[in-house]
Amino acid sequence: MPSDCIPLDPKIYFEMKNIIIASTSTLHAGGYLEYLLPELSNHFKDCKTVLFIPYARPSGISHEQYTANAALAFAKINIAIKGIHEFEDAAMAIKNAQGIFTGGGNTFLLVQQLYQYNIMHVLADTVSSGTPYLGTSAGSVICGLSMQNTNDMPIIYPPNFQTLGLIPFNINAHYLDPDTQSQHMGETRETRLKEFHVFNTIPVLGLREGSWLEVKAGKIILRGGLKARLFEANQTPTELENNSDLSSLK
Amino acid sequence: MPSDCIPLDPKIYFEMKNIIIASTSTLHAGGYLEYLLPELSNHFKDCKTVLFIPYARPSGISHEQYTANAALAFAKINIAIKGIHEFEDAAMAIKNAQGIFTGGGNTFLLVQQLYQYNIMHVLADTVSSGTPYLGTSAGSVICGLSMQNTNDMPIIYPPNFQTLGLIPFNINAHYLDPDTQSQHMGETRETRLKEFHVFNTIPVLGLREGSWLEVKAGKIILRGGLKARLFEANQTPTELENNSDLSSLK
Repeated sequence: MPSDCIPLDPKIYFEMKNIIIASTSTLHAGGYLEYLLPELSNHFKDCKTVLFIPYARPSGISHEQYTANAALAFAKINIAIKGIHEFEDAAMAIKNAQGIFTGGGNTFLLVQQLYQYNIMHVLADTVSSGTPYLGTSAGSVICGLSMQNTNDMPIIYPPNFQTLGLIPFNINAHYLDPDTQSQHMGETRETRLKEFHVFNTIPVLGLREGSWLEVKAGKIILRGGLKARLFEANQTPTELENNSDLSSLK
Repeated sequence: MPSDCIPLDPKIYFEMKNIIIASTSTLHAGGYLEYLLPELSNHFKDCKTVLFIPYARPSGISHEQYTANAALAFAKINIAIKGIHEFEDAAMAIKNAQGIFTGGGNTFLLVQQLYQYNIMHVLADTVSSGTPYLGTSAGSVICGLSMQNTNDMPIIYPPNFQTLGLIPFNINAHYLDPDTQSQHMGETRETRLKEFHVFNTIPVLGLREGSWLEVKAGKIILRGGLKARLFEANQTPTELENNSDLSSLK
């Protein structure tokens, strides 16, 4: 919310949000964003151009290359993409955007960049005020209260782990069930989340690839046809059915 | 090195190190430290008691429980274990230790605790002066220049990512080759390391489970019978044979 506005009623404020929080951009054997395009066509129906935030740089690709990849996918639903790095004033680009998409990659890098450009808060405020937002992978992790359930490697040191707080819990993207056949002794995803809850009480939603959260009209609904796995402090993890309403989770 | 000592010649200083840096504490279907015990019996041959640093708390277990687990394994080679949390003065416990073992768990937590108790530097100095040290998993990652190649989840925010710098490169523990059969779209270990090298020039050694580095008499030798995978900035990764000498790597 811009600082020169009168604070909104938190309930109304929440009801303005229009967000898709997807576990992954790409399904196995599918094209980039392919499985989501029908959904995105509706989500961004009032947008001619969507602002793309390429800071997470998957595999270290450049902002330009990553933005070109996003543009190619969005062209299929007749929407133009413009990268935030093309603007002189990143905060103004966010405030003026018709829609916003933050792509996946490395979450530490993405968060470090959002703080470096001083746009973490303006992004939270703009999306909270109703600008349609899409996050995939790292771009979804930042929708939570903190980035502490990322799977990524700490390749760069961010000034802190707090993120957008668009939903009242955290996201573990690309959630992966333990492989019972594996002889690898590295921690499973479930063990890592258990370690998190020794020190933190924030609930964490393990979103499997193909799932997304639809945050709309004051509700948070699980979409995509799959179950999701919910981890809460001092509780046995539970499986949530597709179309579950997570609005009251906190 | 204690601050009241005259600085040593860096070469001699290096030659005093006596360290085992193991990828994992436990092999599939093996007991805790079991595969390493013959090696440890020799490594700690002059120690009646080894100081255990349990801060990484795997699966969130307590310092007491973790120390009891370590004690059970070391009893098999007739060495007593004492947890650092049992001492009033952690720095003094390190300086006075006959040998030191830092166990695995969560690297973010381990590093945060070493800084909180203000013992990162005294640990580096003590081990550099020749006190025999064993690290497994997170306890090995901290032997590198930074913890930036951990696989762990950022469950807590450390004041920075710098670690002991006992070797002039970084460790990726539990190194895992890409699974060519997997349909999972999360980044492979190799992709994560590639992202690291877009922003950093520190070499990273991917240590497979069952491998360790022996740092002794001024040399760093790969042991355990397996190859290790070396990642350097702007270079194709290479496989290093067992018994390779990594002393000149930097």
